Order: sequence, then structure tokens, then C-alpha cells
Amino acid sequence: MTNKTRVALKLAYIGDQYHGFQIQQNAHAIESEIFAALEKNDVVDGIKEARYSSAARTDRGVHASGQIIAFDTGAGFGDSLPRIINHDLPDDIWAWAYAEVPSGFDARRDAVRRDYRYYLYDQGYNVPAMKESSRLFTGTHDFSNFARKIEGVVRTINRIEICERDGFIIIDVSAPSFLWNMVRRIAAALEQIGAGSQDSGWIKELLDPKRHPVHRGIKPAPAYGLVLRSVAFEGVEWIEDEYSKGRMRDAFVDVRIRHATMNAIYSGL
Amino acid sequence: MTNKTRVALKLAYIGDQYHGFQIQQNAHAIESEIFAALEKNDVVDGIKEARYSSAARTDRGVHASGQIIAFDTGAGFGDSLPRIINHDLPDDIWAWAYAEVPSGFDARRDAVRRDYRYYLYDQGYNVPAMKESSRLFTGTHDFSNFARKIEGVVRTINRIEICERDGFIIIDVSAPSFLWNMVRRIAAALEQIGAGSQDSGWIKELLDPKRHPVHRGIKPAPAYGLVLRSVAFEGVEWIEDEYSKGRMRDAFVDVRIRHATMNAIYSGL
Repeated sequence: MTNKTRVALKLAYIGDQYHGFQIQQNAHAIESEIFAALEKNDVVDGIKEARYSSAARTDRGVHASGQIIAFDTGAGFGDSLPRIINHDLPDDIWAWAYAEVPSGFDARRDAVRRDYRYYLYDQGYNVPAMKESSRLFTGTHDFSNFARKIEGVVRTINRIEICERDGFIIIDVSAPSFLWNMVRRIAAALEQIGAGSQDSGWIKELLDPKRHPVHRGIKPAPAYGLVLRSVAFEGVEWIEDEYSKGRMRDAFVDVRIRHATMNAIYSGL
Repeated sequence: MTNKTRVALKLAYIGDQYHGFQIQQNAHAIESEIFAALEKNDVVDGIKEARYSSAARTDRGVHASGQIIAFDTGAGFGDSLPRIINHDLPDDIWAWAYAEVPSGFDARRDAVRRDYRYYLYDQGYNVPAMKESSRLFTGTHDFSNFARKIEGVVRTINRIEICERDGFIIIDVSAPSFLWNMVRRIAAALEQIGAGSQDSGWIKELLDPKRHPVHRGIKPAPAYGLVLRSVAFEGVEWIEDEYSKGRMRDAFVDVRIRHATMNAIYSGL
């Protein structure tokens, strides 16, 4: 048996061409691309053998700037690993930081905080009202009105902040862990506050399902507005790869310009 | 034989989901959708029998706000025709104006002017230099350096105007007729002027291929930036359909917001 090093990688990706992060039958997942690049370069012999783990299972269409994966490798590529696998990853998935981690490191279990950002296109919302209502989410609550399931729905939000930038309302939410679609449902609820169709009392009721009738049916805001910004761990020292970051930014320019142009064309038609 | 009325319709479409306007084997063309909607509603018995014609064959990915089609119909729908076929058209193709035209009307042959608009994302270009060089294109020239073919390449540009708006350089070009990819090649040449990699002397040489060596290889600017704005005819009285225009704008909102959001997400990553 060869000596293995346990490593973690930070990944950015644009989710709109994928059926979500997690590999699954008959679906084009971001993980399928990652596993293929790892196996092609003999970084791992097999995913299971490498004790692979990931920090978050982002949904279909959701993006990330700081998704984390971890695995054992005997390849000895060190901090050139991001560059090596980027060569075989598609243009919308990029590894951009590397860390050596303890043998027992698990990207999901050891994450102490996850930071999500929602980009809400500003259609003239009442932002002060949204900011005021957003404060109600911080702390520990029963989030069953912001989830699909009804058991195990208590979560603690450390921070929720709203700012306006370039025609968008940016909603930053940080928590040790989230329920499925939780950030998108919070964004949708805050949008209703901003649009004036609900008030802060409604948020208070939603967050108190034991005392108030359960308000089902907050439809999650669209996936394309959500980014997994970062995942925090204790004691992990990241080595950022400036070359990969630069190449990623270059690769993104054309697609970004296409989206900006399509927006202008729709506005002009 | 029933009495037929010859009618013309004005169409808007977003081209990014289609392999161009003109119907062809094994390709998803905008015309396939239009013909299906016309036939489904018995507006025409058949496309050939209806002496169908269109004003311009926009390329794969190119959009239109004022494409024109003409055909004979015995259905008697009058100016409700846009609404009737919109019901069976996809959300990115809309009929929005109606005209009754003489029996001999041909949308391609009778067009006296076509107006195209190119949306160039402003990456810090020298706009005064672009404006100055753009004037060289007006008038009658041998456009073989802006075409694929080398015969029949003399065209007359009536007007070319450049303005800046919301981070874009908008290039408006009007001519009785254009060569294939001509506007996209003109936009690409003007972009090189704006970027400072060429000067107006280069445009003069390109427009004088008989006296100067032929400069092949101006790669057309991307299709997604081009819109067929309008086509002019003499003596045609259009009846605009406000209901269809409103529904089109509503249908475009979500897609426009998605593109605006993707632009913001790419910028933020």
C-alpha cells in the first residue's frame, strides 16, 4: 500500500448546464466531470477508495465560488493539482485552491459554516423593509416553512445581510448547515416583503410554525440566482492558485458578455 | 377556388434557441415554428400554395424585432391573425403587426431597406474613432472583404450610426440589402478600430479590394449581438397588435432577468 495524502480542493462552477452537483444515474452532474478529471489524471484510483467527500450538494442550476471536495491521493501533485485537473474540466468548472488536510477530514462533516449568496434582480423592491424582516431569520428557528421535510428542521442562521449593487439586491446568508432549498425559500419570502405583498408579521408566523398555522408553499426563488460562496473549516490552510483563477476569469468573460448582451437585446426588443 | 387575401406579418424573435430563420432539413428553424402555427390554425393550406415569402434569412443565433413574412390566406382572420398564431408559437417568437398587401407582394423582393442593430459590449473602446471610421462604410462599395463570396459584392449602405447606451456600443446599419454576415463583419472591424488594433486606413483598404491586397479573414462578431430591427416597404399600412406586444414583453421579463442575473453572477465569481 502506498502512502496517501488527504487533500481538499476549492471549486468554482456555473451550474446552469448541469443537473446539480451530486452524481446520479442518467443526469449530467458537476461531480461526474470532477470524478472523470481526477481519474483521468490518476489522482485517485477510485472515488470510493479515495474516501471522497464534498461540503454541499448544490441543486440543479445553482452555482458555487467555493465548493469544497476532499479525497486521498497518492499522486504527489501537491499544489499543482488544481492546474492538472482544470486541464480536463469543462470551462464552467474550475479548481482554484488546494490544501493538505488531516487523514480524518470530511468536507461535509467538518464544515463549520456555509455562506450562500442570492442575487435578486431589483424590480423596485422596498429594500429597508426587506432588511428589517431579514433580521428575523437570524438565530435558531424551526424552519419547516422553509423546507420540504417536517422533521429535523431546526437550524441556526449566524448572519443574514442585504445590500444593493448594480441593480441587484444581494442576500448573504451564513449558517453551519441549511435545509434543502432553504436559502431560495428565504429569498422568495424576502422578495414578497420587498414587493409589499407580505409584511414582517408574516415572517414571524412562518418562523413559529408550532404556534401558528403552517404556511406551506413558499416557492423557492429561481436556482440561477444562488451561489455557494464559501465553506469554512477550522485549521485548513488554503494555497490559492493564481494561474487557475486568472484562467477562470478569462474563460468567463465571453459567457458573461453573452448574458449581458442578451439582457440588452431583451430590453431593447 | 376561394378568394384569398395576401397578408404580411411583422415578427419578433429571440434566435438563441434556433438554427437560424430559414427552414431546413434536420435543423430547428424559426420558420418551422411559424409554418406549424399557420397550418395548425388553417391560416394556410400549405406554405407553397400560399406563395410564402420572408424579408431576410437571419443566421443561426440572430434575433429580430421586425422580420416580415407574407402569404395568401383564405381564413379571414383579419388583424386578429397575430393573436391567433401567437397562441401556438413558442414564447420566443411573436407576431405583433398585420397588413393587407397587394396580391403580387413579395417580402424579400419588395423590401426597400433593412435595418440591423449590433449590440457590442463596451470593453473600453475608443468610440470617437469607431464613429469616424464607421462613416467610411456609407455609400456604395465593393464589400468582398465583408463577405464570403467574391462576386456580386457591391452594396450600398444608406446609414451607419453608433451610439453608447448602458455599457453597450450600438451600431445601426441600414441598406437596401446585405451580404451574408456583412453586418457582423462590419461590427467586428469597428471593434478592432475601437480596440486600437487597426486604424481608419485599414477600413479604407478593406473597402477598396481592387486597389489593395484583399484582407480576408475578418471573423464575424458573435451572432447573439445582432438584431434585424425592421424592414421597410412602400405603401404598406401596418396594424400593430397592442395585446400581442404586451404579452411578448411579459413573456420576455423572466428570461431577461435570468440573463441579467447570470451576468451579475459571472461578474461576482
